[in-house]
Amino acid sequence: MNADGFGVGWYAGGDPVPARYRQTGPIWGDESFADVARVTRAGAILAVVRDATAGTDPGLAAVTPFAAGCWLFSHNGVIDGWPDSTAALAGTLDAGSLLALPARVDSALLWALVLNGLRRGLAPAAALTDTIGALDAAGVSGRFNFLLTDGAEIAATAAGDTLWYRDDTGVTVASEPGDDAPGWVEVPDNTVVSATPQQVSVTRLDRHTHTADGRIPTR
Amino acid sequence: MNADGFGVGWYAGGDPVPARYRQTGPIWGDESFADVARVTRAGAILAVVRDATAGTDPGLAAVTPFAAGCWLFSHNGVIDGWPDSTAALAGTLDAGSLLALPARVDSALLWALVLNGLRRGLAPAAALTDTIGALDAAGVSGRFNFLLTDGAEIAATAAGDTLWYRDDTGVTVASEPGDDAPGWVEVPDNTVVSATPQQVSVTRLDRHTHTADGRIPTR
Amino acid sequence: MNADGFGVGWYAGGDPVPARYRQTGPIWGDESFADVARVTRAGAILAVVRDATAGTDPGLAAVTPFAAGCWLFSHNGVIDGWPDSTAALAGTLDAGSLLALPARVDSALLWALVLNGLRRGLAPAAALTDTIGALDAAGVSGRFNFLLTDGAEIAATAAGDTLWYRDDTGVTVASEPGDDAPGWVEVPDNTVVSATPQQVSVTRLDRHTHTADGRIPTR
Amino acid sequence: MNADGFGVGWYAGGDPVPARYRQTGPIWGDESFADVARVTRAGAILAVVRDATAGTDPGLAAVTPFAAGCWLFSHNGVIDGWPDSTAALAGTLDAGSLLALPARVDSALLWALVLNGLRRGLAPAAALTDTIGALDAAGVSGRFNFLLTDGAEIAATAAGDTLWYRDDTGVTVASEPGDDAPGWVEVPDNTVVSATPQQVSVTRLDRHTHTADGRIPTR
Repeated sequence: MNADGFGVGWYAGGDPVPARYRQTGPIWGDESFADVARVTRAGAILAVVRDATAGTDPGLAAVTPFAAGCWLFSHNGVIDGWPDSTAALAGTLDAGSLLALPARVDSALLWALVLNGLRRGLAPAAALTDTIGALDAAGVSGRFNFLLTDGAEIAATAAGDTLWYRDDTGVTVASEPGDDAPGWVEVPDNTVVSATPQQVSVTRLDRHTHTADGRIPTR
Repeated sequence: MNADGFGVGWYAGGDPVPARYRQTGPIWGDESFADVARVTRAGAILAVVRDATAGTDPGLAAVTPFAAGCWLFSHNGVIDGWPDSTAALAGTLDAGSLLALPARVDSALLWALVLNGLRRGLAPAAALTDTIGALDAAGVSGRFNFLLTDGAEIAATAAGDTLWYRDDTGVTVASEPGDDAPGWVEVPDNTVVSATPQQVSVTRLDRHTHTADGRIPTR
Repeated sequence: MNADGFGVGWYAGGDPVPARYRQTGPIWGDESFADVARVTRAGAILAVVRDATAGTDPGLAAVTPFAAGCWLFSHNGVIDGWPDSTAALAGTLDAGSLLALPARVDSALLWALVLNGLRRGLAPAAALTDTIGALDAAGVSGRFNFLLTDGAEIAATAAGDTLWYRDDTGVTVASEPGDDAPGWVEVPDNTVVSATPQQVSVTRLDRHTHTADGRIPTR
Repeated sequence: MNADGFGVGWYAGGDPVPARYRQTGPIWGDESFADVARVTRAGAILAVVRDATAGTDPGLAAVTPFAAGCWLFSHNGVIDGWPDSTAALAGTLDAGSLLALPARVDSALLWALVLNGLRRGLAPAAALTDTIGALDAAGVSGRFNFLLTDGAEIAATAAGDTLWYRDDTGVTVASEPGDDAPGWVEVPDNTVVSATPQQVSVTRLDRHTHTADGRIPTR
């Protein structure tokens, strides 16, 4: 039951900066959202419903998608042992990045790591896999399904949770099939997806890195 | 200070049914609204900020514009002595109309009266003046500035509060001038305005009707 | 899943007028409520979680318990065909009562009918059964589980939904057992419960009244 | 106009951990808060209304008082140039403290600095003055009026904004006099106040530290 909030980010024609509509509470009770959704058309959308992890910020600031410039990001999953387990990894970010975290929630740190990669010039899929690599190297386990888009391209990881896509009149990437229609393809775990309207590629993640204490990160 | 809520209704291309975005709280703190407003284009808009009258519903249901079918409605003003003063007038509506009131607020009753006129076939301006006539006849005083639109035509009354309009690249009707630009025209009190992109007409209301106790309704 | 709002009313020592804490959204995400609940002690409490009926006000104004003077009221159930089915019954209330409805929701009309009975001098249980009698007589079907209290006495009806009580160190009346402890007693359908710390009585409702079209109201 | 949120923290009898009630939006529209305030009695209260600084989180997570264990904290003022101006100072905190910031707002960093002092064993007033000293040493200017309490003692700073107190049947420390009654005392700027029901002391802050670029921090 995802009743703790919802968020939609979309790209309006001619504007590279996405708009976001986010709320706490269940999506079905928000009459304004029903109206906005009815009259809005967009070429690319990232939509999320939230089932909050206990101990994280239950409020609006923690509702994804997070945004920066032309980017929208969301995380389906959890960091095991957050925040204590991530102190060392967080220390690799500068204090300014930590001050800019949108909320006290594990997803916000993951977004900071991904954004850091984008700002270093990584391509979207590389920014995601680089972040998972950093998590693995730091011995931080969890489920790390990411979605990242700039409105033209989608990068997504399957790393602990299910991930599906569909490629017909447009490309859809989703945690679960959105309907019973044929054409949905399940993505194997530990892969990264890059998708444009022209092409979908699925690449295996190299996650055989041993952690500090010898454990192999697993789902 | 209008910090108790805000609402915007607009007509998206090709859809006669308006969309509404309404919230409690001040408009300046709502990041989703800032985004929706940034990326949305519309041919006709009705926008409201609320300074709630004490004793009325402080919540979302009382935030205008109210809507029915293609209509958007808002009320700037107050019914003196509501709800007690309006019991007789409310009794002229059928129980179904009273059950359908969107909120426990004076504006909701005014909207029911206006909508009742529209459903009897009155033109927009006539539905407004008919309602003011009914209020006067029932000896109900107050300030009754109404705004009503179907996206193609605006009807508005100046009846106790200020009303202005401006007619250049489009028509704007507002409680106060929205900027310092030239071209704003103040509407005299006790008038009704009908406006389309082609024409604005201002007509004097006949409000010399004496009330039951001999008082003349005044501002 | 009751994620559409929640409300608690309680009686603080020495004050006959109850306090209410109500919110939209799921109860588990409200940190302020968790704190208020932790530090508040009360001799009598009425608590509700809401699963809103489609078509009714999804907002705060529709969240029970409703309150007037020393009374708290809630309704678990639905009026079939509301609002159209209730127009005749609503017409038995004066317009002032309909203007005072807290929200556009079936429960608000039921509360107006019960409150009307209390103001005519009926005892709590009688106000509930009188309202069910009026619904039956008007041919209005539905599920009418009511809870009514003034902090000293609880009146409740089982009329379409389950109802349980428990009488040990205090009296609890609930839609379902709140825990696995022994002592919960299920109340038969079509009964009214009157409970004080000293005594619980369960009385059969006489609902054999035929409706206008000859149907017997059933669950 | 403080319409962007409000928060109250209080100490219920026998529980050293305070309760908090916080909301976004103006305090006057919250019926639940009016009820909670009416029926709650407490020996110590910290109450705040928020006028949000542009660019900070407008949501609930940023509404003070912040809390940890037995402590309540609020900040009246602003950090000039936040977040960029504070990157070096933030870097003196461990990453775990930065991950635990309740919101993306300057006050949250100040709270982390104060809490860090308390955890190192500083007394309340010393934790506040130590934080102001660290800000001055780092060349971070702004207005730093803090309020800190554990329910038994109040520590507060006047460092850029007005501060008043009153000591009669109890001690009140406030940004401005709460009423027209006699007995309010204005605290000089650049002082720290320690108050218990038995005693109020006002001590001058030593803020003659030159900043990195030779400026003396001023109001």
